[in-house]
Amino acid sequence: MPDGSLIFPAAEYQRRIRALQSGMQDSQIDALLLTTPPDVFYVTGFLTRFWESPARPWFIVIPAMAPPIAVIPGIGADLMGRTWLADIRTWDAPDPFDDGISLLAGTLASVVPGNGQIGSPMGLETHVRMPMADYARLVTALGTRQMVDATGVVQRVREIKSEAEVDKIRAICRSADAAFARVPEFARAGTPLDQVFRDFQIALLQEGADWVSYVAGGAGPGGYGDVISPADARPLQRGDLLMLDTGAVRDGYFCDFDRNYSVGPPADDTARAHAALHDATTEVLETLRPGITARDLHARLTTALRNRAMTPGGGRLGHGLGLSLTEWPSLTAKDETPLRAGMVLTLEPGVEIAPGRIIVHEENIVLRDTGPELLSSRAPALLPELAT
Amino acid sequence: MPDGSLIFPAAEYQRRIRALQSGMQDSQIDALLLTTPPDVFYVTGFLTRFWESPARPWFIVIPAMAPPIAVIPGIGADLMGRTWLADIRTWDAPDPFDDGISLLAGTLASVVPGNGQIGSPMGLETHVRMPMADYARLVTALGTRQMVDATGVVQRVREIKSEAEVDKIRAICRSADAAFARVPEFARAGTPLDQVFRDFQIALLQEGADWVSYVAGGAGPGGYGDVISPADARPLQRGDLLMLDTGAVRDGYFCDFDRNYSVGPPADDTARAHAALHDATTEVLETLRPGITARDLHARLTTALRNRAMTPGGGRLGHGLGLSLTEWPSLTAKDETPLRAGMVLTLEPGVEIAPGRIIVHEENIVLRDTGPELLSSRAPALLPELAT
Repeated sequence: MPDGSLIFPAAEYQRRIRALQSGMQDSQIDALLLTTPPDVFYVTGFLTRFWESPARPWFIVIPAMAPPIAVIPGIGADLMGRTWLADIRTWDAPDPFDDGISLLAGTLASVVPGNGQIGSPMGLETHVRMPMADYARLVTALGTRQMVDATGVVQRVREIKSEAEVDKIRAICRSADAAFARVPEFARAGTPLDQVFRDFQIALLQEGADWVSYVAGGAGPGGYGDVISPADARPLQRGDLLMLDTGAVRDGYFCDFDRNYSVGPPADDTARAHAALHDATTEVLETLRPGITARDLHARLTTALRNRAMTPGGGRLGHGLGLSLTEWPSLTAKDETPLRAGMVLTLEPGVEIAPGRIIVHEENIVLRDTGPELLSSRAPALLPELAT
Repeated sequence: MPDGSLIFPAAEYQRRIRALQSGMQDSQIDALLLTTPPDVFYVTGFLTRFWESPARPWFIVIPAMAPPIAVIPGIGADLMGRTWLADIRTWDAPDPFDDGISLLAGTLASVVPGNGQIGSPMGLETHVRMPMADYARLVTALGTRQMVDATGVVQRVREIKSEAEVDKIRAICRSADAAFARVPEFARAGTPLDQVFRDFQIALLQEGADWVSYVAGGAGPGGYGDVISPADARPLQRGDLLMLDTGAVRDGYFCDFDRNYSVGPPADDTARAHAALHDATTEVLETLRPGITARDLHARLTTALRNRAMTPGGGRLGHGLGLSLTEWPSLTAKDETPLRAGMVLTLEPGVEIAPGRIIVHEENIVLRDTGPELLSSRAPALLPELAT
């Protein structure tokens, strides 16, 4: 980047900080404490796979009216120094006697008044990424300052993607599109499922993914049993329905969609389920506009499936997408989050073909005022066949 | 597995549970609550990349004298049902009104007396993977039962690897060995660093990794600036020192080691630093035995480097390895963890060649009574050269 920041120009991060600070003001929060990879990346551009190591906590403090402060292990000083942040405070982690807690408490105390509030995401789909005993020490060190839940403050900002963010998600969706298109090259009757998973990850990398954080799927006669298992070595067989699902990453942004394949011609009920899923998704996409809730969209999907004599899968039928594989909202019967223009979502309806046999269909969209714009290329209406 | 369990026979998990329960008894802990991917995998064999989604918490409860209970989102029921666990309780997650907390609290209350203690890892290098607000609700729901820190209980068991576990780590180290050997095939002067990272991940998959959770590295004239950055598109240049570091995964177990390469002949100071690192590591490996502490080993490494007129890098010079990219102990000046036979460790000494230019060397070992057994193939004594 010409201005020395990472992934995006500094102005993008400054806009995000202003939006967060506006929400903080509305919630009377004097500083925001962020600890997870997507939250830290969102406000800084600090992108590293080093989060894979659970050894060290990382902290970003956003005061109500001043630029953010990084309170991080020394090993991150070089990379954080290349972001737009100017105030970077480090300690030599891991330290069994004081793993950054006095440095963090001092930083917070310097920007939050004694009767002030420090917000951190504590709600659904969040966690605080630091040792619980250290969190308790921090609360004690903060004295009369209160820790409060800032889930909504962060979510209302992060859930609306800028065009720069949408471009990133579109780019990784295109890589996944290209990798899915190549599945018939390496998957056919006789190919072990774990080999298919490996070759699919290779294809994703070859098509431009920086890394592949998620591949799951399943294969079974006319349908699969679940969608989160790793692969076993069982060879694909004629009549199997194969599903591959990926969260590949480029510049820190995820895609998350799946595709289904039939090994040879599909059974009638499998073909019917796929057609119904495709058709129901099309119907919902055509009428989807901002202003309804996640729950409303869940209802539309289940109704569209039931109208086609299908049994919708349990659980959520889609979710937010962006800096992690899944973001809020959740398309469930209970999530009242309003859907707004600028949200990037997955639509992920599934149906039960028969007991123990399901099929799941997934697309990635950005919601516009005029309706959804597809970020994944629409799945084919006819279930593609793999060679036998 | 013939007995229906995953990754290992059920007897392996039962042995682990007995060892944890023995530690619980010593610490007067009536139930253990586990929430993170490696802890859950360790006691159940439940292995999924679905942890990449932060949407749902997952809980394992280990009573003091009864088999473990899974309290998990319904989407995991199929996969958990294929592990050795018999007692699996599910809810429809994510649920904004009660995301498993009443089910978990009820489960804990049924196995822990009213004046009892529930242990969970809360110390260094841990976190509790659930929303903080839900953790607070849980503590309230548990009434007079106390949550206590069980970091030591879990670590003292997990840090000693069984031979079955060592075999898994050795297998993924061999895959990484093979991938590192192929680096000269795809990296040379002119190759963009991000292309090297992609091709290295492809090589790891081709050599048997199930997935690649971590690749980092660096490249710069005669040394690199840090070791946690993602790759940029800068082409390798004659005189660059390239380092690749990977945490690849097979059957849920990680390797974690790096290798260095010089693009064309190395500068004298770079070659000297590499030779000193290699030589110091050899010296430490030859004398390493169980019975010293992590801190002692750190001191031996720094002394061996200083004796060779080198400036040791700051931070830790190695760590535990197994179910995550890094485990305790940390080879720092402050970690007093005793090193015991059966521990799998990385030795990761680094030196500063010049300000802003470092080189890091890393091997994976299992500590035996008779000394270390290398799991990675020893790095070459002479820095390998890439074509210019």
